[in-house]
This record gives sequence, C-alpha cells and structure tokens, in this order.
Amino acid sequence: MGREIAILTDFGTGDNYNGVMTGIIRKINREATITYISSESKPFNIYAGAYLLYTSFQSFRKGTIFLVVIDPGVGTNRRALLVRTRHYYFVGPDNGVLYPSIQKDGLLAAYELTNPHIHLGPQISSTFHGRDVFAPAAAFKSLGVPDSSLGSPVDPFSLLRLEFTEEQRGDLRCGVVLFVDHFGNVATSITHLPELGDPIISINGVQHKAKKVRTFGEGLPGELIIYKNSYDFVELGINKGNANKVIDTREGESICLGGYTQGDFSRST
Amino acid sequence: MGREIAILTDFGTGDNYNGVMTGIIRKINREATITYISSESKPFNIYAGAYLLYTSFQSFRKGTIFLVVIDPGVGTNRRALLVRTRHYYFVGPDNGVLYPSIQKDGLLAAYELTNPHIHLGPQISSTFHGRDVFAPAAAFKSLGVPDSSLGSPVDPFSLLRLEFTEEQRGDLRCGVVLFVDHFGNVATSITHLPELGDPIISINGVQHKAKKVRTFGEGLPGELIIYKNSYDFVELGINKGNANKVIDTREGESICLGGYTQGDFSRST
Amino acid sequence: MGREIAILTDFGTGDNYNGVMTGIIRKINREATITYISSESKPFNIYAGAYLLYTSFQSFRKGTIFLVVIDPGVGTNRRALLVRTRHYYFVGPDNGVLYPSIQKDGLLAAYELTNPHIHLGPQISSTFHGRDVFAPAAAFKSLGVPDSSLGSPVDPFSLLRLEFTEEQRGDLRCGVVLFVDHFGNVATSITHLPELGDPIISINGVQHKAKKVRTFGEGLPGELIIYKNSYDFVELGINKGNANKVIDTREGESICLGGYTQGDFSRST
Repeated sequence: MGREIAILTDFGTGDNYNGVMTGIIRKINREATITYISSESKPFNIYAGAYLLYTSFQSFRKGTIFLVVIDPGVGTNRRALLVRTRHYYFVGPDNGVLYPSIQKDGLLAAYELTNPHIHLGPQISSTFHGRDVFAPAAAFKSLGVPDSSLGSPVDPFSLLRLEFTEEQRGDLRCGVVLFVDHFGNVATSITHLPELGDPIISINGVQHKAKKVRTFGEGLPGELIIYKNSYDFVELGINKGNANKVIDTREGESICLGGYTQGDFSRST
Repeated sequence: MGREIAILTDFGTGDNYNGVMTGIIRKINREATITYISSESKPFNIYAGAYLLYTSFQSFRKGTIFLVVIDPGVGTNRRALLVRTRHYYFVGPDNGVLYPSIQKDGLLAAYELTNPHIHLGPQISSTFHGRDVFAPAAAFKSLGVPDSSLGSPVDPFSLLRLEFTEEQRGDLRCGVVLFVDHFGNVATSITHLPELGDPIISINGVQHKAKKVRTFGEGLPGELIIYKNSYDFVELGINKGNANKVIDTREGESICLGGYTQGDFSRST
Repeated sequence: MGREIAILTDFGTGDNYNGVMTGIIRKINREATITYISSESKPFNIYAGAYLLYTSFQSFRKGTIFLVVIDPGVGTNRRALLVRTRHYYFVGPDNGVLYPSIQKDGLLAAYELTNPHIHLGPQISSTFHGRDVFAPAAAFKSLGVPDSSLGSPVDPFSLLRLEFTEEQRGDLRCGVVLFVDHFGNVATSITHLPELGDPIISINGVQHKAKKVRTFGEGLPGELIIYKNSYDFVELGINKGNANKVIDTREGESICLGGYTQGDFSRST
C-alpha cells in the first residue's frame, strides 16, 4: 500500500487550491509524501491532463496514489472515482482524464466515492471537490483504509472512455494533438514515423514540412522538426524555438502525417 | 507546537526566492514539512494575499506556521511580525496581509521579529526579508524556540488592519473584489445572495446580469453565473470560461449586488 | 553525504517533466528531501539559470545535491556532469549553467555520467536526459553511491566556462544583464555602485537615469531605482512597478554604468 501521493491539477500556482488540498492531505496523513505531476495543467483541458498523467505515472513508485483534479464538471452528476489498477491507485473525476492510464496499467476495481464519512463535512461544496472529496479520499487511501470503505463498487465498463486514437487513412497516419508543452512542442497520438524521408504534416487544412530528427540539436534555427518524444509519441518542435507559433494548434485537433511507404505499414502492424 | 510550515509568497516559480527561503528553512530545521499555499500570489497585492491566506489556513493542521511574504514595503519601517493565534502561528509583514486570518482565528499574542540572533547575519538585506528575517523566524519557531526569543511583544491593537467589508446600502449589498483566480472567477467580500431571483451586479459603473447557480454546470456557454464559492464568498464565474474577461475588474474594487428583498435582509442579519 | 536534492529546471509547472523527475528520484531514494530552486527558469536561457543557481546554492545545507536541467543541447554531444565542490554536488549539463557556482564553491572533482547502469532504461531518450540521466544520478548520489560509480573523471579545466564579467572602461563600469525577475527587476553582473550621486545607465544604445537607493520604498511611483540586491549584484527596479518595461532588456545584454569617481575605483579594486 502506497504512502506516496502524486497530484495533477489545473489549479495553477497563483491560486490556493493546490495548497488547500495539500493541507487537507497532511491533516489526515501527516507522513504522506506529496509530489506534483503538474500544478497547472491547462484549465478544463481533459486531453492535456490525460496526456500528462499517461506519460508520467510509470515514473512513480508502485503503490503511488494519483490524485487528479481536472474537473470542469464539478458539482454535476459526473462520478468521483477511486480506481485500483495493477500497480497504482487513481482518484479523480469520471470524465476520461484517468482513462488512458487506467487502461494501460490494467484496471482491477473501480469505486464511486460515495461514503460521506470520508468527505470533508458536514456539507461538501459544489465547486471544490478537490478539497472536499478527492483529497480526503487519497489521504485516507494513503493511510491504508480499504477501498470498500471509501465508496461503492462501480462497473468498470461504465467508466467514461477517452482514447488516444491513431489510424491509417490510405497512405496517411492520423491521430489527434495530445499536448502542446510550454516550449511550444506539439505531441500527437501518432506513434510511428516514416522509416525513410521526412513526413508531410496536415493540420487544420494547412500542410507543413518537417525534418525527421533524433535530437533537437539537428534542427536549424526556425526549422520545424519531427521526432519520437521521450514518451514515444510523435512530436513536432523547433530547436530552441516554439513550434506551435508556426502550426497554431491545440489539444484535441486532428493531425495527419504523410510520407509513409508500404514498408512502414507492414512494420508497424 | 507545529512542525509544518505553509508558505504564501508573490515570488513566482520562475525566480529563486521561494527556493532560497526553503533552503534556509531546511538548513535550520531539516525535518520541517513545507507546503506552498501559493508560490506566486499576485505581485504586491495585499488583498489577494490576504484572501488566499484567509480561505486556506483552516485547511491546515493545528500548530501550522504560516510564512507569508507579500511585502511591497520590505526595507521600510513596516514591522516584521510573529503572531500567535488560537490554533496557529503567522509570520509576515505588518501590512494587513495576515490580518483577516488572525482576526478570524483569534489573536493571542504578537511579536516584532527584532532579535538579530535569529536573523540571517551578519547584516540583513534591504530587499529580501523573506530570506533574512521571515524564513529563519518560521524555521526557529518550528523547532520550538519560544516566541519571546524571536522578538519583542507588540500591542495587538497596533497591527495594521485590513478587513473584508460587506455593507447594506439601501436595497444593495456592497463589498469589494477580493480575488480574481486564474480561471477568471471573481470572488467578492459579499457573503449573501438574494434568496429569490438573480442579482444585478454593479461594478465600475457598469451593470451585469448573472444567473444564480449552485454549480458551474448550470451555466450556459458564455453566461455569467453567480454562486457562493467553496469558501462561502459570493463569486462570479462562467462555466468553462473566464468571467473577468467580461467584467474586467481587479482586487480592491467596489462591487454591489441588487435584487435583494426584505426577506433577505432579515435573514442575513 | 547529502540527502537533500535541490532542483532547478526550465520545464515549467504546466508540463509534467518536473513531476516525472521527482517520481524517478523517489523511486530510487524514497527518503530524499526535494526542493525546487525554480521549476520554471526561463526556457533555454543559460545565463538566467546560472544566475538563479549562483545566488541560491549557499542558502542550502552543506552536502545538498543540485540537479540542474536547463539543457538546450540535450541529445547532442554536450557532456552530462557530476561535479563535487567543497561543500556540495552539482549534476547537470556541461553548458556553463553550473560553472559560476562551481567556481565560487571550489571544484574538487568532475565526472561525466557515462555509467549506463545508472541510466534509466535499456535505452535513454534523445530529448529528456532530466529523467533518463540527471535525475537517476542525483538520486543515486543521495543514496551515497561513490562518485566514481556514476561516471568517469573529466579534466576540470575542460568544463565549458560561463563567467559573470565586470570591467572598467574609462570611467564606466560594464557588465551584462544576468536576470530579469518576474517583478521586472533587472540584475546585472556589476557589483559596485558609485559612492556619491546617482549613476547613468547605458543599455542597448539608450541612457537612463536611476536614483541610488537602499530600499524599494525610497523610489517614487514610476521612478527607476538602482541598488545592491540581496545577492550583492547591482540591480535596477521600480518601487511596486516593473523596471524592465522601461529599459526593455534581456539576459546576456551589455550594460554600463557611469557616474563613478576616482575614489570608487580605488575602493573597489
């Protein structure tokens, strides 16, 4: 059972929502080790949050409890979840943000956080379940409280799904933009590059050329480059520059790459 | 006596002032548990800092030491304070930023941090008392050093006051803007909404309509909504949008709500 | 041997790179104490990073391991270093960012992080050595692994040098802009102010007058002020304002001060 709690929120470092959640956790479990995956994921952006969680959870010690509060539906009837997977726990809203990570690690059981005794009482707010529901649940879990004391089992197949799609369309490979980082690098859900030559990128009705590289240093000043990023997704960047100032996209937009040959498709299937 | 230190500053995560303060604290007390309420409260903004502290301190374990460095008067003759309240300690400048929290928890004793032996010596800077005065004081307090060894008692009535005002003017209820968060939600010092119907908001000579809701999800796209926030203050927002792009205000501005009936006023007094 | 790790990166709080590094460290050394000097130093900006490290490392407990990932050359043949100095360890790229701090504390030995057994994974990425090389090295060092098990010795004189220059040119004192903080204060590599009178500042072909002060509070609204900052560098600011909106500079630009007399030069040499 894990003592480490890793937090991902879109609250930002200028507000006190992250601090309040941490205060609540330490009130319940003074010994919890708390790490931020990110304290200011993009506001209301489920794709960005799902990507940040998916690309980081395996860097954490087994047993870590992930506390994810990217929750534009707070106060509506979206469910508050605790999910146990093969190596971790995930606490957060049932809006898809947890889904790719849960699916990757392997879901074992899911619970809705319905037990009012673990909520911050006597009455929870309508706008800050991070404080009133999710942080207490993660903190009690870190103390070893059994899953079934935190909520009621839910059908794993009922969870809202969010998937990082990648598909072949003729000689194109298409996916979605998963994340634009603060350097302006654009990560996509595509996982294969053409073996030979440089791909053509189609996004938002515009085509771009990009040089296929292994490291940023291979890019000339201002030149769009494309590479497998450190999380094994295809990403666009500019060496010491901001690629998204050129391609001007956002999370969730469709993107296609051309320039594959028959060999690429047989290799990657 | 508390081992936990909760920090609130306007230093930002791009500078090293927060890191330096943390280094100093850990030099003095290796075992201190350090949490940030916010590491980048709005620069020089006493109202915003006072609001962030006021709305978060009770989420922390009793005995927590709050180290607050929002200090535009650093180097002038404003006093550096240690204040003991019923459940907590507060360390910071005497500029009002601590005042609403101290008043709420109940002041027991106040000290000016005059003891040069606890300052970072031999000579303190004129511009960074966070490092040279406040962080050492909080760290020594976390080790259990008695209050009277850190400074000299001051008259509690001499503290600079900052109050979150709310008053009735005819059939209006008026207060000030306390905080605009990074989602663009606008929190006010007003604590009651009309029981019936939606209020009219007057701010900066302009009137706005807002729908009274309990959760963000009740707001239509782009629609201004008004609700009691999770800290029990009346707040303006837009579901998945930025309310302050519409009302364009800042901390400290006056705001009035109309639409109350006689019943509201008798209930809330 | 140090258990404390202090991190400086340009990753930002909106991405997950900092969180991933922290996860990796805690996987290797559950007990490590982790502090951020800054989690979002300016992207690709070696000067800014070098300044933030230089002005903060001595605030940390002796034995602290500094993990610095400002690394625009990631994936190229720039070396990954572990450097032991008189009181600390420094882990980071050989691009100058560590250099002023190493030089100040006194270099004892330098190693290139060549041991593949301490790298993450069967194959390290080309774009995220923070996760794959630097964080594991810092974590193993915090467990007491001997320097020579982490890499191979390198000639200390081969390290890439970055120096904070200050020189006399006629009756001017010239240096470079080291850092513009988020308040807009502009720190320079100059360390002496004229004893008498206010200096004239020349930067970018433009001259500015600034009032020599000891504290921000001595500046009138909008007035450019100049002072020794809390790190003993000459800095330009505006009381409760943003000096860089006036002088519009950036790290690395030349700056000269006039207004010195013969007495200043004899005193400061």
